[in-house]
Amino acid sequence: MEFTVQQIADLLQGKVEGDSSVKVSTLAKIEEAQAGALAFLSNPKYESYLYSTSASVVIVSDTLELKKATGATLIRVADPYSSFSTLLHYYQTALLASKVGVEEPCFMGQGSQIGENHYRGAFSYIGSNCKIGSNVRIFPQAYIGDNVTIGDNTTLFAGVKLYANTVVGSNCTIHSGVVIGSDGFGWAPQPDGTYKAVPQIGNVVLEDDISIGANTAIDCATMGSTIIRKGTKIDNLVQIAHNVEVGTDTVIASQTGISGSTKIGNNCVIAGQVGVVGHITIANKTTIGAQSGVSKSVKEEGLIIQGSPAFDYKQNLRAMTVFRKLPELQRELEMLKEKV
Amino acid sequence: MEFTVQQIADLLQGKVEGDSSVKVSTLAKIEEAQAGALAFLSNPKYESYLYSTSASVVIVSDTLELKKATGATLIRVADPYSSFSTLLHYYQTALLASKVGVEEPCFMGQGSQIGENHYRGAFSYIGSNCKIGSNVRIFPQAYIGDNVTIGDNTTLFAGVKLYANTVVGSNCTIHSGVVIGSDGFGWAPQPDGTYKAVPQIGNVVLEDDISIGANTAIDCATMGSTIIRKGTKIDNLVQIAHNVEVGTDTVIASQTGISGSTKIGNNCVIAGQVGVVGHITIANKTTIGAQSGVSKSVKEEGLIIQGSPAFDYKQNLRAMTVFRKLPELQRELEMLKEKV
Amino acid sequence: MEFTVQQIADLLQGKVEGDSSVKVSTLAKIEEAQAGALAFLSNPKYESYLYSTSASVVIVSDTLELKKATGATLIRVADPYSSFSTLLHYYQTALLASKVGVEEPCFMGQGSQIGENHYRGAFSYIGSNCKIGSNVRIFPQAYIGDNVTIGDNTTLFAGVKLYANTVVGSNCTIHSGVVIGSDGFGWAPQPDGTYKAVPQIGNVVLEDDISIGANTAIDCATMGSTIIRKGTKIDNLVQIAHNVEVGTDTVIASQTGISGSTKIGNNCVIAGQVGVVGHITIANKTTIGAQSGVSKSVKEEGLIIQGSPAFDYKQNLRAMTVFRKLPELQRELEMLKEKV
Repeated sequence: MEFTVQQIADLLQGKVEGDSSVKVSTLAKIEEAQAGALAFLSNPKYESYLYSTSASVVIVSDTLELKKATGATLIRVADPYSSFSTLLHYYQTALLASKVGVEEPCFMGQGSQIGENHYRGAFSYIGSNCKIGSNVRIFPQAYIGDNVTIGDNTTLFAGVKLYANTVVGSNCTIHSGVVIGSDGFGWAPQPDGTYKAVPQIGNVVLEDDISIGANTAIDCATMGSTIIRKGTKIDNLVQIAHNVEVGTDTVIASQTGISGSTKIGNNCVIAGQVGVVGHITIANKTTIGAQSGVSKSVKEEGLIIQGSPAFDYKQNLRAMTVFRKLPELQRELEMLKEKV
Repeated sequence: MEFTVQQIADLLQGKVEGDSSVKVSTLAKIEEAQAGALAFLSNPKYESYLYSTSASVVIVSDTLELKKATGATLIRVADPYSSFSTLLHYYQTALLASKVGVEEPCFMGQGSQIGENHYRGAFSYIGSNCKIGSNVRIFPQAYIGDNVTIGDNTTLFAGVKLYANTVVGSNCTIHSGVVIGSDGFGWAPQPDGTYKAVPQIGNVVLEDDISIGANTAIDCATMGSTIIRKGTKIDNLVQIAHNVEVGTDTVIASQTGISGSTKIGNNCVIAGQVGVVGHITIANKTTIGAQSGVSKSVKEEGLIIQGSPAFDYKQNLRAMTVFRKLPELQRELEMLKEKV
Repeated sequence: MEFTVQQIADLLQGKVEGDSSVKVSTLAKIEEAQAGALAFLSNPKYESYLYSTSASVVIVSDTLELKKATGATLIRVADPYSSFSTLLHYYQTALLASKVGVEEPCFMGQGSQIGENHYRGAFSYIGSNCKIGSNVRIFPQAYIGDNVTIGDNTTLFAGVKLYANTVVGSNCTIHSGVVIGSDGFGWAPQPDGTYKAVPQIGNVVLEDDISIGANTAIDCATMGSTIIRKGTKIDNLVQIAHNVEVGTDTVIASQTGISGSTKIGNNCVIAGQVGVVGHITIANKTTIGAQSGVSKSVKEEGLIIQGSPAFDYKQNLRAMTVFRKLPELQRELEMLKEKV
């Protein structure tokens, strides 16, 4: 996509200064920008870049007084950072919106319906009896099992796999390699040492405004639903086990695992590589530090915990400080014993 | 799939009580069940749900005496829990069995053969010279490289990737996103600081009755085979490195990693996010706690270990209890030093 | 692929001893080899296997004197280990090279070009305006988004996903399930507790000679590029966040996660299940032990660190040794207190 500097200035209600015939096709940081890119200058600390940048267009403040000549065309606005942020959103939305139509071959089973203005990439698969909303983007090689429901404006990137009966809300983004609805890990030990599968016939429900990162796996419930509530954001390579429920507006960073039947509250922040055991409850607004292992319910809201097993993060920090000095402590104790 | 209450009663050798024209299409917990669902009541503690449930059909005990009216049709049997469990297995098997036939386009290379009553989903790929048994389900976008062997009744869900020369037994279930047979991580450091690949020309062998969870990766052996023995169950996002051998009837929970050439025994239980170093042996019936790091062979059978590095779990628990109090311990030591 | 013993002897400049009509189709360890396999004997400790092996051909030293008869045909060379290693490389290269041509159906968008002698597997997808070099192997169900660039001799195994604008160098190997270019995990908290997406419009750049293991995820930069430099090798299920830069000839083992904007130096060795926080710098030649959590920059080159949080590995080892004895230490302290 290519835009003239005037098109962008109109969008931002800014004033063009310099060559108004210039065109841009991407956005970049002012210190890294190449020809064809648009950058911004907000922090005066970086003003020197304005005179050396290769950017074709730079968004600057209404009030900036140039100290030297610049090769870039300027767009003057009240708040350059905010204007640039607006453009970023506009750019990403436009990129996605440019994907429309149906590439062949792709597959849609009997009784399935999909709303208007959608994209179905080549080799994408939609099973039977699916209900899919409008403005949905289904990238190549994505798989949607039977009886799946998907809301409006949701994007499934290339190769996403949704097992049968999955429910996905509106405005969701699911990245490549994500698997939703695979069997929960339920095995009944038998007297002879073998395991018998506990049937996993439930599903996964993602509410609206959810984002799921690459290669994350969310298992279906044994019965009922594994549920991710509205607004929650999950990073790459995360494991969500069967019958887990994650509250609203919670963020879960990469490589974290939540074990079966655990309930995570609303507005929690869970850092990377955390493990949470099964069948516990984590209160709203809990923060869990990276690599923690949570083995007990957290009942009070707003706590910050850390460690494996996890407890109060300040207490953990203090204990870790002493941990490093343990050999020294041991020596001192030995010396004392000798003295006494 | 829809069943009449009479069909189900016949299957369970139970007696219908109430409207026998009712049909059900799913199974649910009595407290969550909607119209069209079948539930069960086993524990008397939950009897109140029987009178408020929206379930269309409830399986109850022969001996239950109703205290109020219920809107649900009842099926009376000797053991409601066991009958419901039978139905669950029946339901899951029937769902899978309903997938039969070949969806186009799909790909099968020269010299490959597949047994009767199979499912090959659209965009699935079978390479050359593969031998695939009967009742095998190959979901859409699954990939089977050249010279792969697969036993009877095995299911590959959407997007599974089996590299060339992989051997999969009978009655195996492999979930979406699983990669089997990728190159082991073998790199020979060179004098100039670069790395040269050690060729990885072995394969992976999965014996019978194995289940592999979503997005798990199992590398091929450098030479010979990486082996997972009969009856072992592996959860999501697990890493099994080259030349590993996992014994029979072992369970490995999510996000665990087993490094190269390590041998895991039979009937082991390995919790989530465990790491096991390479070239060691873990005895039969070893239990390894979550987030443990196992750095040495475990020679005695039946041990329970925990921690990173892992040792006896009771000893670890006691050490962790003192760990929390380390700042206090340090203060006490300081006070003692002053006194002495 | 099948070779006569004479073909192999010619390649290795060795001498055939025994039945020269024998053919082999695979390579194996002498203790595991079956008929049709070629093995080698280098270490005299294993000489007994030479007389019991089922291998059809064994590479031995020029100077070896047979103590018994062997059923295998011998190829005599100066250095059996080195010759076998040559064959391994030859075998793996030949296997890959045998994949040539285009399997239908596959997809290529407008304006894309690909060099000679390539393989495009069935159901592979190439978007618009891609530039792909020669001798590139694109296995089935791989996905290459718009505007992607790929150098010569690079292999994408089945189901690899490259988002739009990704740049991949020459001689790279990317294994199944890898996702490159998914959105970075950037969320701006809003006053009402919800999160707004920070647009992620950058890309990922892989330089030459890079290997990426199965199911690894590398996010695109917010702006600019996430960069993996020449010669670096990454194992399975690794997470590389947005705007990370990994130096040259660094190895990163399985299930490790590198958080956003962190810079890893050249010639580092990072073991499995390590976590590195965001916005820090790790000096060249740093070694990080398994399951470590790195929370601070490492400024000095050549350090070895361990633990969570990580510090000098010897110091960590000593502290861990005392950690195990903490209950004992506590008891001793109590006894001392009573005495004093």
